[in-house]
Amino acid sequence: MTWLRDIETFLIDLDGTLYRGNEVIEDAPAFIEWLQSSGRRYLYVTNNSSRTPEQVADHLRHLGIPAQTEDVFTSSQVAAEYIKTDGRSGKRVFAVGEGGLYTALTEAGCEVVKEGPADYVVQGIDRDFSYEKLKHASLLIQSGALFISTNVDKALPTEHGLLPGSGSLAAAIRTASGTEPLVMGKPAARMIDFAIERLGVSKDRAVVVGDNLETDILAGVNADVRTVLVLTGFSKEEHIESAEGRPTVVLHSLTDLRRHVEGTEQ
Amino acid sequence: MTWLRDIETFLIDLDGTLYRGNEVIEDAPAFIEWLQSSGRRYLYVTNNSSRTPEQVADHLRHLGIPAQTEDVFTSSQVAAEYIKTDGRSGKRVFAVGEGGLYTALTEAGCEVVKEGPADYVVQGIDRDFSYEKLKHASLLIQSGALFISTNVDKALPTEHGLLPGSGSLAAAIRTASGTEPLVMGKPAARMIDFAIERLGVSKDRAVVVGDNLETDILAGVNADVRTVLVLTGFSKEEHIESAEGRPTVVLHSLTDLRRHVEGTEQ
Repeated sequence: MTWLRDIETFLIDLDGTLYRGNEVIEDAPAFIEWLQSSGRRYLYVTNNSSRTPEQVADHLRHLGIPAQTEDVFTSSQVAAEYIKTDGRSGKRVFAVGEGGLYTALTEAGCEVVKEGPADYVVQGIDRDFSYEKLKHASLLIQSGALFISTNVDKALPTEHGLLPGSGSLAAAIRTASGTEPLVMGKPAARMIDFAIERLGVSKDRAVVVGDNLETDILAGVNADVRTVLVLTGFSKEEHIESAEGRPTVVLHSLTDLRRHVEGTEQ
Repeated sequence: MTWLRDIETFLIDLDGTLYRGNEVIEDAPAFIEWLQSSGRRYLYVTNNSSRTPEQVADHLRHLGIPAQTEDVFTSSQVAAEYIKTDGRSGKRVFAVGEGGLYTALTEAGCEVVKEGPADYVVQGIDRDFSYEKLKHASLLIQSGALFISTNVDKALPTEHGLLPGSGSLAAAIRTASGTEPLVMGKPAARMIDFAIERLGVSKDRAVVVGDNLETDILAGVNADVRTVLVLTGFSKEEHIESAEGRPTVVLHSLTDLRRHVEGTEQ
């Protein structure tokens, strides 16, 4: 694991890695402060499509974790970035989502439309989802709009139980329209590739840090970037054997990660 | 095809077989009148879960096709029948659906609840579907309620295009809850088995008549009942080769079917 000593850039997941819901993971603030003071780069990379980067940074600071708006990269931003650089001349978007998605699309210069016609249908978590939205999205996709999903997380762990995630809405639109979505967030490589590009760093000296084999780790594997699975959240050590993507390294905590990067792990 | 001469019972699909939307298929009224006058049994077997049998019969009569309420068997009725005879003592049902589903459940003695707890979640087409309903359904299923879907038709052909069908809502609930639904309608064998039981007839002397390989014909195959594919609706002759279930006979029309049953096909 001596390669960890050469890592300069950290693409860090949020829920399960830095906090769990409203509870900070104990060594997260010190880990980020150490990244800052030692001159290393980092980006908070989150599938969350409902919040704006500003709201995400607020939440992190509220938990005692240093964060600026520009330190946050959401799946809604990846979608907006994708559309911005995509070949289609039209930028009319029918959006099924919440504030974070609307803000990201608008800031990227997209025209968010309430009816058709549309060049894109972009879907994220939407707690105001309805049959009408499903119908519009499906008809627009059947008419040629490109179907983009910010992320296909099946469920959201909350204090009320596992609530339907963006992936369950994507499943409805996919079934109705007969079309697979282009996925922006983890485990798609796109999110990691865009993050690397945004920071202007080298893949060889970057690492994806997260708690979820199916999203964080698989995204790193798909993007050909090394990964660290921390055992503070969703995935457990016994899940690795059957996982689609295996982490380069498994560590118990962010403090362990720091020790390995510093070379003081003994 | 001489076995057709011994057929006494016809389980007949509606859309694509007797009518297309609001347009009757030319020889449908005469075919049904002939079944009646020659003393043969029949049942209209439909995946439609939103209408009551009374509404379906009204629609048929409006098109000139003889129909009584008791001639109609909907996927909502199959769901209600299933719950009635199922082993669970509780009959509390959280329903995601429209009038036809509520009526069928209430008539079968189920207690339709607006919140939990529930013993069953029954889902059909629901043009008032929402994230709230998806959330309730998913949480109740995670708490042990049995997940039943009236039908998993992906889309509904209408004059406005292919609109989202019951199957697209089932996909959302399945993804959110991580649970496969128990499907009531075609292509499940259950609908045909229940229809045979309701009429008290022999499977050997019954036939499923329909226009759709994926629902009507596959249901017959799954229930071990012979099938006639009529080429007046959805499926075309060239689809048969790759179909999961193959029809016993393919005929151009209901008039052709009558000739084969009467033995006057030459």
